[in-house]
Order: sequence, then C-alpha cells, then structure tokens
Amino acid sequence: MDFEFGVISADEHDRIGALHEPLAEAVRRLIEASIHSGADAETIMAARQTIDEVTEMLERTPTDRPRVLRHEETGLPVVWRNPAVGRHNPLAPPMNTHHEEGRVWTEFTLGPVYEGPPGLVHGGICALLLDQLLGEVATRQLSKPKFTGTITLKYLRGTPLGPLRGEAWVEGHEGFKTYARGFLSDTQGATVEAEGVFIMPAWARDVTE
Amino acid sequence: MDFEFGVISADEHDRIGALHEPLAEAVRRLIEASIHSGADAETIMAARQTIDEVTEMLERTPTDRPRVLRHEETGLPVVWRNPAVGRHNPLAPPMNTHHEEGRVWTEFTLGPVYEGPPGLVHGGICALLLDQLLGEVATRQLSKPKFTGTITLKYLRGTPLGPLRGEAWVEGHEGFKTYARGFLSDTQGATVEAEGVFIMPAWARDVTE
Repeated sequence: MDFEFGVISADEHDRIGALHEPLAEAVRRLIEASIHSGADAETIMAARQTIDEVTEMLERTPTDRPRVLRHEETGLPVVWRNPAVGRHNPLAPPMNTHHEEGRVWTEFTLGPVYEGPPGLVHGGICALLLDQLLGEVATRQLSKPKFTGTITLKYLRGTPLGPLRGEAWVEGHEGFKTYARGFLSDTQGATVEAEGVFIMPAWARDVTE
Repeated sequence: MDFEFGVISADEHDRIGALHEPLAEAVRRLIEASIHSGADAETIMAARQTIDEVTEMLERTPTDRPRVLRHEETGLPVVWRNPAVGRHNPLAPPMNTHHEEGRVWTEFTLGPVYEGPPGLVHGGICALLLDQLLGEVATRQLSKPKFTGTITLKYLRGTPLGPLRGEAWVEGHEGFKTYARGFLSDTQGATVEAEGVFIMPAWARDVTE
C-alpha cells in the first residue's frame, strides 16, 4: 500500500470542515428520507436522476489533498472520513468524542437508519461505535499506532434508537498490549459493555514510546 | 414500543425493490463522491441545496407501509432497511447473504467510505458485518427471535478494502442459547474471526420451537 501523508493547517482544516460538514449533514437527511419515502415511481426516478447529477458535479474535481493528514496544531490524525466519528462521512452518526486523561466520552443520537430489531439499534452498529471508542482511548486519540487484537461485546438489553452515551477507558498495559473497556448507555443505564485488547504492530515498536 | 406488523406480497415486494434499490445505489455513489470531492465552495453549496430539494421531495409522501413486514411467500422478515444487508439502506454495502442448512455465506465489496486505517476496513465495520452474519445463521435467517448475548471478534490482520467474503455457521445449541462462528476473508485467507452466543428472549420461549 502506498499512501501520501501530509499536514493540514488549523485554518485549512476549519475551511474545509465548514464546507464538508453541512454537505455530510445534507446527505444524512437524504439517506433517512430515501428510506422512509412512499413517493410514487415518477418522483423516485426524478430523485435518482437529480442525485446522479449532483454526484457527477462533485466527482468532476476530485480532492488533491493527501490521503492521510495530521492536524498541524494538535499533531493528531484527521478523521474526517471515519465511518464512526467522521464529520464528513454521511455513514457516521457522527460521534463527537471528548478526551480526558485515559478516558473518552460521547453523546450522540441514532435514528432509524441504524435500526436492527424494531425500535432498537442494530447490535453490529453498537459494536462499530464501541470499537471506535475503545480504539481511540487505547491509542490516545489515535496518536499511537495500535490495532484491535480482540474485542468482546456483551449485550445486556436492547439499545433504543434515540439519544445515547458512550464511554471508554484504559484498564492497563502489558508489554505491547493495551486493555480497554467501555459501554453504551441510555437514560436507564448501560445497554452494551465492551472489552478489548489493542496491540502495537511490530513495525511501530522501535519507533514509538 | 408499538409497531405495526404486516405481510407483503411477492409482487409488491419486487415492485418496491425495483424503485428503492436503484435509489439506494444512487445515494451510495453520492456518499462516496461527497467524501472525495475537491469541488469549490460554490459547487458544494449548490450540491447541498439540490440535495435538500430532493430530500424534501422524498419526504413529502412518507411511506404508509407497516414498520415490520413479512414476505408473504417466504414468511421471513423483510430486511430492506437493515444497515448491514438492507438493499434500500445506503449505509449497507449491502451484503447479499446466501443461506444453506446451518450456514450463511456472502461476497461483497467495501469502498473507502468503510475505511479505518489507510487502505483497511474499519475494525468496527468488520464487527457490524460479522454480527449480522452470525445473527442470521443463529436465527435461521431471522425466522426465530434471538438476540446477540455476546460476540467476540479476533482480528488476525488488517482487512483490505475491496472484494471480501464472509461466512458463518451454527456450532451448536444449549437450551435457549445458540452458538455461532464465522469469519471475513480476502483472497489470502481469513482476516477476522468471530464467535457469538445468541439467546432466545423470555417472551418468545413458550411460543416458538
């Protein structure tokens, strides 16, 4: 694999965010509308055609930014396109994560596009979000290269669609392994618990920490 | 929770699929274009405005179909909107699952909207897809009410973006518990392994099997 790496200034980061965050929000609303629409065939075909035109318009000028970017001020990787927390990725709710020493928390809302059983969040979506939270805390906000080794999710009860909270923290370290735990919760308490082991890859062991 | 349940005929199922599957495909292409676009501010704002117009057009007539549907011929739940396999949900790749006795397999392609580390699928997306595969096989294609109790994912190496295969099978049963295993693989072999326990909820124990 061959990737361009680059650094982005705070100003440029904010300028692009101001364009792409509202675009992603608009696409999120479209995704939800498309799922719930009972429009007739003519309307749906007109919608498709207009969507295709917008796609072509956006594709005409592909981005020339390096694929992997670090923020000039924070030094942290830019996660715009991440499918769990990426503010430019319409797939992400997105989770807005807050980092404190050895801990991360987030509050977010999941709508019907994330539904599994009726009224409940798809169990795999809970897994996606907890993998991200445990990974962020284990890698100190992605500043250290570590990959998920194993993760176990324990479903205590169904997670309702709507406002949710997530938390994760580091339990400890052992050699190149970091142990993390976390949960998702609604107003009644935890719905899913997670524990994971994150491992620093061999190629990174002599250059970091 | 209060949900309407209904039955849908094979003809109506196919008629709606013929409208909504290409609509979801168009939205998937738009999601990818929006992430990679380097268009200028004017173009992106024009794109947003047009997307908002399409959203309003689709919202004008909400669907009047019951929220939970069973297919008249197969008797199975309709999973149009499922975020892993739903052909009408732009979030889903979608995986197209093939069921054999006690086994499920699928082949699908993941693009950059599912990326975590550069060039690799987000570990949490692997978890989402494996939760769906193990869940489908444990519930006999969702014909039995069972919920994920626990699921453990073991990441053997990074899963590259591109064409992938998934498989899952039932390992055994014990009372109200079903044990399932599975994996994702690329052309070089397995990248993530999963094992899970699926539990029939108390309310279903006297009415099924």
